[in-house]
Amino acid sequence: MAELIGNLLVAQSGGPTAVINASVAGVITEAGRHDFIENIYGGLNGIYGILNEDLVDLNDEKAKSIEGLRHTPAAALGTCRYKIDFKKKAAKAAQDMDRLFEVFAAHNIRYFFYAGGNDSQDTAHKIHEEAVKRGYDMRVNGVPKTIDNDLPHTDHCPGYGSVVKYNCATVMEVGLDVGSMATDDGSCCIVEVMGRAAGWIAAGTVLAKQGNPANPPHIILLPEIALDEVAFLDKVKATVAEQKYCIVVVGEGLKNAAGEEIGADKSRLDAFGHAVLSGAADALATIVQGKLNLKTRTVKLGYAQRAAAHFASQTDADEAYACGQAAVRAAVDGKSGFMPKIVRLSSNPYKWTIGLHPLSEVANVEHFIPRDWISEDGMMPNEKFVEYAAPLIVGEVKVPTLNGLPHYVVLEKSPVDKLLAPRA
Amino acid sequence: MAELIGNLLVAQSGGPTAVINASVAGVITEAGRHDFIENIYGGLNGIYGILNEDLVDLNDEKAKSIEGLRHTPAAALGTCRYKIDFKKKAAKAAQDMDRLFEVFAAHNIRYFFYAGGNDSQDTAHKIHEEAVKRGYDMRVNGVPKTIDNDLPHTDHCPGYGSVVKYNCATVMEVGLDVGSMATDDGSCCIVEVMGRAAGWIAAGTVLAKQGNPANPPHIILLPEIALDEVAFLDKVKATVAEQKYCIVVVGEGLKNAAGEEIGADKSRLDAFGHAVLSGAADALATIVQGKLNLKTRTVKLGYAQRAAAHFASQTDADEAYACGQAAVRAAVDGKSGFMPKIVRLSSNPYKWTIGLHPLSEVANVEHFIPRDWISEDGMMPNEKFVEYAAPLIVGEVKVPTLNGLPHYVVLEKSPVDKLLAPRA
Repeated sequence: MAELIGNLLVAQSGGPTAVINASVAGVITEAGRHDFIENIYGGLNGIYGILNEDLVDLNDEKAKSIEGLRHTPAAALGTCRYKIDFKKKAAKAAQDMDRLFEVFAAHNIRYFFYAGGNDSQDTAHKIHEEAVKRGYDMRVNGVPKTIDNDLPHTDHCPGYGSVVKYNCATVMEVGLDVGSMATDDGSCCIVEVMGRAAGWIAAGTVLAKQGNPANPPHIILLPEIALDEVAFLDKVKATVAEQKYCIVVVGEGLKNAAGEEIGADKSRLDAFGHAVLSGAADALATIVQGKLNLKTRTVKLGYAQRAAAHFASQTDADEAYACGQAAVRAAVDGKSGFMPKIVRLSSNPYKWTIGLHPLSEVANVEHFIPRDWISEDGMMPNEKFVEYAAPLIVGEVKVPTLNGLPHYVVLEKSPVDKLLAPRA
Repeated sequence: MAELIGNLLVAQSGGPTAVINASVAGVITEAGRHDFIENIYGGLNGIYGILNEDLVDLNDEKAKSIEGLRHTPAAALGTCRYKIDFKKKAAKAAQDMDRLFEVFAAHNIRYFFYAGGNDSQDTAHKIHEEAVKRGYDMRVNGVPKTIDNDLPHTDHCPGYGSVVKYNCATVMEVGLDVGSMATDDGSCCIVEVMGRAAGWIAAGTVLAKQGNPANPPHIILLPEIALDEVAFLDKVKATVAEQKYCIVVVGEGLKNAAGEEIGADKSRLDAFGHAVLSGAADALATIVQGKLNLKTRTVKLGYAQRAAAHFASQTDADEAYACGQAAVRAAVDGKSGFMPKIVRLSSNPYKWTIGLHPLSEVANVEHFIPRDWISEDGMMPNEKFVEYAAPLIVGEVKVPTLNGLPHYVVLEKSPVDKLLAPRA
């Protein structure tokens, strides 16, 4: 394999996670081992920033900062939700692609790594295809990242183990709190977690039970399974009769029998025109309180859950780092158009390795929980799910503290000189 | 001082905290050092359970469990919001008092400790007065506990440092997340924290700034200071112009200019007839999104914040433990009708000791943030507040883990035989 001499560009995209920076640390560290990779650049705010030629020189960062990325949440390089949409906006997409390759050429980018979820893998795939089509010698690999755990082919996604670990700790703690307050009147608490289409995050909180059916959460509602209101209320009632309290976990995208998201506030839309989901838990609380006359409170973890590096999974952080390294190694080996994937060798003891998968088969495919990993009533993942998820939350990332708070890294981000005219 | 021979009863009341069990551990450990304290009992669910003669034998607990209480959140003995209300329900209150003293006498309770907030100190005070009135030789002391930090005379309350520490970590992490996603469109995230009347909890999140004005939170709205909507929106706008994003922390009890709680859902009432507050953050988000056309998301930490022992303050846990010990020592010294208080000797370096304060001066007095600890615009605590709060979050309670999750203690709670007829 001929050594390809040139510069490297790494960028992050989509919703951040607690360990997406660990992947970037993996990319940078691995790249540093190969002399023919000359400069290591970061693209600010993903494709959005690269289009504006907003590059920073990662060689200028302190070694300590790069190491610190392994415990620092969110996207240290910034992220975006910018989509190159060849289907709906072909002219704009072609223009964007031209601009991207102008930037790549101007800065002699020969290695490009894009860490993100489905949309980002799709973008990486398109850039890879364009490079081939244009005969521009560049190796492009994706790096998997998403708390949603909905990328196909990889056993699970970096970012998922950490959100599950934090959410489980929260459910345990909220459960102890509510359980300790419960007297004969009973009470209910509904914890809303992320997950719009796939219920991986909500399902993961089953681990908080630690194998004891009496432990919270008592009910887990997944976006894939339409709410059966009668069955749900019956289960709340039965749980309160037995335990004096009931902890419910709900994925934000939970739908009613008509297929409508129960928490959707149709007056608010996001950048993609989806209704902003603000209230699955509150919507359920209204139902429980109204129909069962049961004191009901809600917790909505929102962004806090995906950024909670103060209680992140070491297994997850290690895998995220390894995925970053593997993307670079594959490129060094001449491979382009791939995504590293986590391959499970065994669950108990948990053993894993990193494989590679063609981006062409990753992009825009969503991975859902097998139906037979969930109880028949649809309200609790079963032992198959537990066997799958349990290893992913093991180990705690050690976070240094300063004045009693986590000490996270902020990169210097020294800008690379712009060589092009501003974007039209 | 004559040694009073008899049994000890400890109970917990009100909303739990991350360290209220540390206080119980302090009570039990200290009591174990005095031979004339014979049996150590716990009352389940506070006064509510004691009225039902629901006592458990804490001598039967493993030493390891008692030690484990120092890192276990929520009320290990159960708690309640039961109030002995001599003002509004005099007959019922008198009946309750008779029953309590029947239980005390039946089990030869000579030491009673009640850990809780304002209402609980009031209850402890009334029981102390009744004991004196009835000539029943019993020493009754309160143990301070409340995340709200609104007890008077004590420098701060056990439970407060831990909620602030966790909330600050959350605000830092959410800030990194939102900041890393912010592009030229800007964005806003509103984090709702507890605090109905007093804004201590919301104000505490100023520590997340770590002294850097550019850091989140950018705006802190306190329940004591009516929302000035125009000034608030101006500050959001200015922050987004400067930082591309804005993190707002709001205390759940925030009021509008008319004095109405902006998050109150008047259709839902709690046990005391107060409107359930479910949505200060969502109410604000509607305003921001509507008036500024700015993408706005919310986080509502709810019960999670007061139970988050996985990131609790060691300083707080130590002080909670010391308060439990001090309540027993005072009783052993013949004192009844007191509450241990934390006395600050210096802020930098932080030094504290435990004093005692008469319950008669504690009950039903609320302690608010001095106005001159808050910026003129009312939207940010100043350096006086920071000097006060900073020491309280230092140190991390070490929590053992099991399968990647916190390993919390569940007491055996072996019941004490009932000696009385069931309550009428």
